[in-house]
Amino acid sequence: MIQTDILIIGAGPTGLFAVFEAGLLQLKCHIIDALPQPGGQLAEIYPKKPIYDIPGFPEVLAGDLVDNLMEQIEPFQPGFTLGERAETIEKQEDGSFIVTTSEGTRHQAPVVAIAGGLGSFEPRKPLLKNLDEYEGKGLTYMIRDPEIYRGKQVVIAGGGDSALDWSIFLADIASSVTLVHRRNEFRGALDSVEKVRELKNKGRIRLITPAEVVRLEGSGKLEAVVVRRSAEPAGDTRIETDAFIPLFGLSPKLGPIANWGLEIEKNAIRVDNTLDYQTNIPGIYAIGDVNTYPGKLKLILCGFHEATLMCQSAYQRIHPDKRYVMKYTTVGGVQGFDGSKKEAPKAVIRSID
Amino acid sequence: MIQTDILIIGAGPTGLFAVFEAGLLQLKCHIIDALPQPGGQLAEIYPKKPIYDIPGFPEVLAGDLVDNLMEQIEPFQPGFTLGERAETIEKQEDGSFIVTTSEGTRHQAPVVAIAGGLGSFEPRKPLLKNLDEYEGKGLTYMIRDPEIYRGKQVVIAGGGDSALDWSIFLADIASSVTLVHRRNEFRGALDSVEKVRELKNKGRIRLITPAEVVRLEGSGKLEAVVVRRSAEPAGDTRIETDAFIPLFGLSPKLGPIANWGLEIEKNAIRVDNTLDYQTNIPGIYAIGDVNTYPGKLKLILCGFHEATLMCQSAYQRIHPDKRYVMKYTTVGGVQGFDGSKKEAPKAVIRSID
Repeated sequence: MIQTDILIIGAGPTGLFAVFEAGLLQLKCHIIDALPQPGGQLAEIYPKKPIYDIPGFPEVLAGDLVDNLMEQIEPFQPGFTLGERAETIEKQEDGSFIVTTSEGTRHQAPVVAIAGGLGSFEPRKPLLKNLDEYEGKGLTYMIRDPEIYRGKQVVIAGGGDSALDWSIFLADIASSVTLVHRRNEFRGALDSVEKVRELKNKGRIRLITPAEVVRLEGSGKLEAVVVRRSAEPAGDTRIETDAFIPLFGLSPKLGPIANWGLEIEKNAIRVDNTLDYQTNIPGIYAIGDVNTYPGKLKLILCGFHEATLMCQSAYQRIHPDKRYVMKYTTVGGVQGFDGSKKEAPKAVIRSID
Repeated sequence: MIQTDILIIGAGPTGLFAVFEAGLLQLKCHIIDALPQPGGQLAEIYPKKPIYDIPGFPEVLAGDLVDNLMEQIEPFQPGFTLGERAETIEKQEDGSFIVTTSEGTRHQAPVVAIAGGLGSFEPRKPLLKNLDEYEGKGLTYMIRDPEIYRGKQVVIAGGGDSALDWSIFLADIASSVTLVHRRNEFRGALDSVEKVRELKNKGRIRLITPAEVVRLEGSGKLEAVVVRRSAEPAGDTRIETDAFIPLFGLSPKLGPIANWGLEIEKNAIRVDNTLDYQTNIPGIYAIGDVNTYPGKLKLILCGFHEATLMCQSAYQRIHPDKRYVMKYTTVGGVQGFDGSKKEAPKAVIRSID
C-alpha cells in the first residue's frame, strides 16, 4: 500500500504544481495518472504547441512547461503511479481514503486532490470485432514503452500527429513499420509529414492509403491484420505483424470518478470556491479543469491558484493542531525532501574600509 | 483626460498580467503607479532576488519576471502613468470613474482594478526640520531619472542596497558622490558592498560613517548639507551639494485609496471571492496582495488568477450585451492591438506520395 499526505489524481500541470505547494508545507504527494507519462494533455495531446497565457511566459511549449514543472517539484520527490486509472475510493474509519487503480495498486492518504483535467484520456478504438481478444496481446491503443517494439513488426493506423510521430520513432526501432490511414491526406505538423514521406521513400515505412484494418487474426495473440485498400488497386492484404497500434486519438472521460459520490455538474466536479476547492466529501478536493464553480475558467493558471489554496486547507486537515505561517520563498527559500536547499543569497553586513 | 477600458492601479505583477488577460478580451488598459517604473515591489525592492514559487519557473529573478510580463503584455499596448499616486476617484453619471493622481493627471474608465499590492510605497523620511522647503528643490527620496544628476554634486544617505547601488550608479554620472550612513556597517549584496569599497578607494565615492545629515541649507533651493560624524574625529562638516537623496527604504501605505469608500479589513480591501474579486463598489475590483477574503494568500500566482477572473467580469460590465466565448491561446493565438499576431503553427493536411 502506497501511503502519502496528499494523493493527487492527475499529473497535468495543476496536479504537478500541487506537489510544489504541498512541499512548501512539508506535505508529501503521490500522483496517479492513466497516461504513461506526467504532463496530462500538455504532454500527450499538444507537447509541441505554444501556450501564450502562462503568466511570465510570453510563449512556452506545452512540453517545456511540463519539464519546468517537473524540475520545480523535484526537490519534493513525488511518487507516481502512471499508466493506471484511479478506479475506486473507500473512506476508512480514521478518515483517510484508499484509492485503488485499474491495475489494483492501492494508495492511502488523508487527503485526495482530484486534478483530473477533462477526465482520463481513453483511446478511441477501431470498430472491429474481437478487439478484446487481442488487447494486451499485440493490440494496444497507447505506446507506453517503445522499447518493447524493438525488432518487431508493427502496424500503426491513424492519420494525425500521434500516428505520424510514432511511425517515425518506431522506424528506428522496429523491424518493420506499416502505416495505414483511411484517407490519402494526413493532418499533422509539417515536419512530421515530411519526415514520414522521407522514411517511406527510403523504404523504412510502408504506407497504405486509403485503407483500413478490417480484421485481426491470430490464435492466443495477434499474428496478422487484414488491410482493405479502398482505391484502385482495391482489395485486401494480409500483413503478418507482432503489433497493431490504432492511434485514433484520445477522448476524455470523467470515468470511474463520476461514481465516487461527488456532486457532478456539466461533467465536472462541483467545489466550494469560496474557500478551498473542497468537494461535497470533506477531505476530497477537486482542482484545475476537472472542477466547476460560478465563474470557473478552465485555464492552467487558475489551476495553479486552486492547487495552492487546496494545499493550505489540506494542511489544516492533516495538522489540525498546527498553525502554518506562510513564508515567502524569496525570504525562506525552498527546502527539498531530498535535503536540497534553494535560497536567495543572503545580504552581507559589513563595514567598508 | 486619459480614457481606457480598465484602469489598473498598481504596476506590480498582478496589474501587469491583468493587461494580458484584458487584451485577450480586446479590452484596453492603462496603469497608474506611484513608483517610477513598472514591476511594483519586484522592481523596486528586490529585483535581484530569486522567486521560487512562480508556476513553471524553478527559479526566476524578480526583475526578470517583470521583464517577462512586460514582454507578454506588449502586444496589448498598455498606457502608463508612472511616478504618480492615485489620489481621488469620482463616479460619473454614466457609471464610469474618474481617477486623479497626485500630479493632477485624470483618467476615465468604466472599470477600475486596484492592484495596489501592499499599498503605494512611501519613502521613509529623515527626521530633519524644513524638509518641505527643499523637497523637489535638491531633496528627493527616490531616483526617477538618474540623468538629472549628470555633472552634479550628490549626497546620498542610507546603508542598504538602494543607497549602495545608487552610489555606485551615480559615481559614473555625478561630479561627486558622498555616501553618509549612521553605522559603519552596510547591509546589502556582497557585490554591491565590494563595489562601493572599490569606488571609495579610487576616490570616486566619499564615504562618511558613522554619520548623519543633521541640517539642510540653502535659500530657495538646497545648497549644502551638514553632516555630523558621531565617532572620533567627531564633529560637523558642511558639504556643498546640488542634491541630497536619503534612501531609508520604502514603507507601503494603502494611502488615499483607504478613503475611496471601499470596505477595508486589516489594511486590505475586502472583495467578493466567490465570483470576481469585486469590491463593495460595483465596477471597482481589487486583485492581488491588496485584497482580502477568507483563505486569502498574498502570493503572486494568486494575483494572476484573480486578475483573470476580474477581466471576465469587467468584460460583462463593459459589454453587457455580448457573450464572450473563451478561446485557448494554444488554439486562437494572441492578437495584439499593435497588429501583431502570435499563434501555433497550423497543422498541414496533405497526402504523402
